[in-house]
Amino acid sequence: MSVFESESRVIGAPVRELDTPALLIDLDAMERNLDLMAGRLSGARLRLRAHSKTHKSPLLARKQIERGAVGVCCQKVSEAEVMVAGGVEDILVSSEVVSPPKLRRLMALARHARLMVVVDDPRGAELLSEAAQEAGLEIGVLVDVDVGQGRCGVPPGAPAAEVGRFAGSLPGIDLRGIQAYQGKAQHVDGFEARRKVYEEATHRIRETIEEFNSAGLAIDVRSGGGTGSWRWDLEAGVLTELQSGSYLFMDAHYCSIGGPDGPVYADFGPSLFVLTTVVSAPASDRVVVDGGHKSLSSDSGWPKCVDIEAAYSAGGDEHGILTVPVGAPRPDLGETLLFQPSHCDTTINLHDNYYGIRGGMTEGRLEAVWPVSARGMVR
Amino acid sequence: MSVFESESRVIGAPVRELDTPALLIDLDAMERNLDLMAGRLSGARLRLRAHSKTHKSPLLARKQIERGAVGVCCQKVSEAEVMVAGGVEDILVSSEVVSPPKLRRLMALARHARLMVVVDDPRGAELLSEAAQEAGLEIGVLVDVDVGQGRCGVPPGAPAAEVGRFAGSLPGIDLRGIQAYQGKAQHVDGFEARRKVYEEATHRIRETIEEFNSAGLAIDVRSGGGTGSWRWDLEAGVLTELQSGSYLFMDAHYCSIGGPDGPVYADFGPSLFVLTTVVSAPASDRVVVDGGHKSLSSDSGWPKCVDIEAAYSAGGDEHGILTVPVGAPRPDLGETLLFQPSHCDTTINLHDNYYGIRGGMTEGRLEAVWPVSARGMVR
Repeated sequence: MSVFESESRVIGAPVRELDTPALLIDLDAMERNLDLMAGRLSGARLRLRAHSKTHKSPLLARKQIERGAVGVCCQKVSEAEVMVAGGVEDILVSSEVVSPPKLRRLMALARHARLMVVVDDPRGAELLSEAAQEAGLEIGVLVDVDVGQGRCGVPPGAPAAEVGRFAGSLPGIDLRGIQAYQGKAQHVDGFEARRKVYEEATHRIRETIEEFNSAGLAIDVRSGGGTGSWRWDLEAGVLTELQSGSYLFMDAHYCSIGGPDGPVYADFGPSLFVLTTVVSAPASDRVVVDGGHKSLSSDSGWPKCVDIEAAYSAGGDEHGILTVPVGAPRPDLGETLLFQPSHCDTTINLHDNYYGIRGGMTEGRLEAVWPVSARGMVR
Repeated sequence: MSVFESESRVIGAPVRELDTPALLIDLDAMERNLDLMAGRLSGARLRLRAHSKTHKSPLLARKQIERGAVGVCCQKVSEAEVMVAGGVEDILVSSEVVSPPKLRRLMALARHARLMVVVDDPRGAELLSEAAQEAGLEIGVLVDVDVGQGRCGVPPGAPAAEVGRFAGSLPGIDLRGIQAYQGKAQHVDGFEARRKVYEEATHRIRETIEEFNSAGLAIDVRSGGGTGSWRWDLEAGVLTELQSGSYLFMDAHYCSIGGPDGPVYADFGPSLFVLTTVVSAPASDRVVVDGGHKSLSSDSGWPKCVDIEAAYSAGGDEHGILTVPVGAPRPDLGETLLFQPSHCDTTINLHDNYYGIRGGMTEGRLEAVWPVSARGMVR
């Protein structure tokens, strides 16, 4: 920890005096999101399996689990390793694992947590079976079903059941059910358009459940859904686990997805921000802040300035250029400006620490510094 | 260091057996780039001031300095701190520094290295002067001139000289010259189009030099240019320092910038790659690799698959979707695929380590594991 870091860790410091760029959590807003999700799922058959690829923090995962989440998803084995080390005991590795070093690691981890992993290929099932046998244990497996995303996954219905039958017949594999995540359905713009994509996916899940049932295959676990579909997931009743991650922070992209009726799912509020400083004010309509591609991810568009009406544009790795509308007051050199990231997951992964603020983004104070413990865990 | 990491550190391991995603350097290709730049600048008045925002590694910076570089640029103070700790003794902080914690840190660092910093505003100069006086030292300052990029910087000519005169009059400031970096000129597509933008920038630099000379202001240091303009920078003779960074690795974006005559500057060759594994092969024309937004940056487009002809498209944080042309052989589950990043700087910043490979990307072996020491140093 550098002197820099310790200067940024003065608990009680006013939010606008923190060194920048800094990744901030509005703790009040985040806790509202945590409680809202917990309340909506309370008593439902659908349990939250929070996606830890969003927050990369076992500390935040435990806050979700304390409020009723069954555990977390991890996209990578190394991410799961950080979660287990941080006290998270129930994990679904939601990506296929096929390489020998990762299979060994996965099995080592399965000794210390309740672990499931997905599979979408008979050869993948064989690799899992061999690794489990070598480790002398049995691992929980979900068949990964492509319900419309067009990424990984076996086709729904009979092909999925066939992979399930094959996997379930192998030693070391405990077939538990399916993963059916429709990533595209999370981001479709407009209520009716999104519902249509969602309903197609739901139809494919039902078809797959029927095939599993006909074949006498276990399908107790049906994991999928997300922040962009969670109310439908709750109503439809086909899933048992909701893989929502972004609800915790709500980035500008999720907040902006709308339609004729406005944002489709506006239940959750933004709670994640990046604080920057104006380091140059070279023209009457332009200022430059100290946050660029390395502080604010751009894979889902530009971040949104919260403090003033000004459009952000790329200024390279470490700068953002803000165009201030004619007649609007231009921020001064040294002033701080707050941004809502366009994509929370990839922005968080750029930072080493969260700075938790209590009392709002203007007058609030630093309450906690939390490491982004699984940052960079891409293996 | 996890067990994972140690599995990936078996020196001598065949490149295609490394755990993935892994950030690879083709050491032979990188050394050719290092030597080529050193050879071209040998005996010239133009010295390399390598941009460390690209590699984030004092180890690589020292390889550049051993071959004649005058030192490095750092975009951030925290980056400079890592460079100094790693034995780099001559640093230009190429971004404006205005906030109190950073100014204190900058001055603390100036005790342990030859340090310069840029300024583009009289108020910024006052802040620097105050911090330098408080620390009881004098800091080298370059006036940051906007020669066409439209980001930071004071306008060229008289306005730049006026900031220089004011800054130079303040205690604690040692005015050394100007920074004149035209970032846009580095990326203009086509030889003649780029030359035009470059010549406009050069005209503005000359105009500024004249004004500084007329006013009797020091302008021994003129720092700017880059990988996309270096031969012109060498010929034009207006700069004394070349801020090239990407020449070391040459990403897909730099390699693709072309025109009627093909790539404008094809001197340097690609030496940076990300190794991935096929984790899903769900359709005859599609495979999915384990590298997404968190392993391969997308701010400058998609990465380029080196091994096979297949278009990469986004598959989320941790996946890339590859579309294989009809009739082409589809890679198998578990096979590795190598990618050239679209933007080296932002891709490197996602990884904790470089894996240095000797003997090529197919048959080569792991020779070195080097930390990306300044990864995440955004302050």
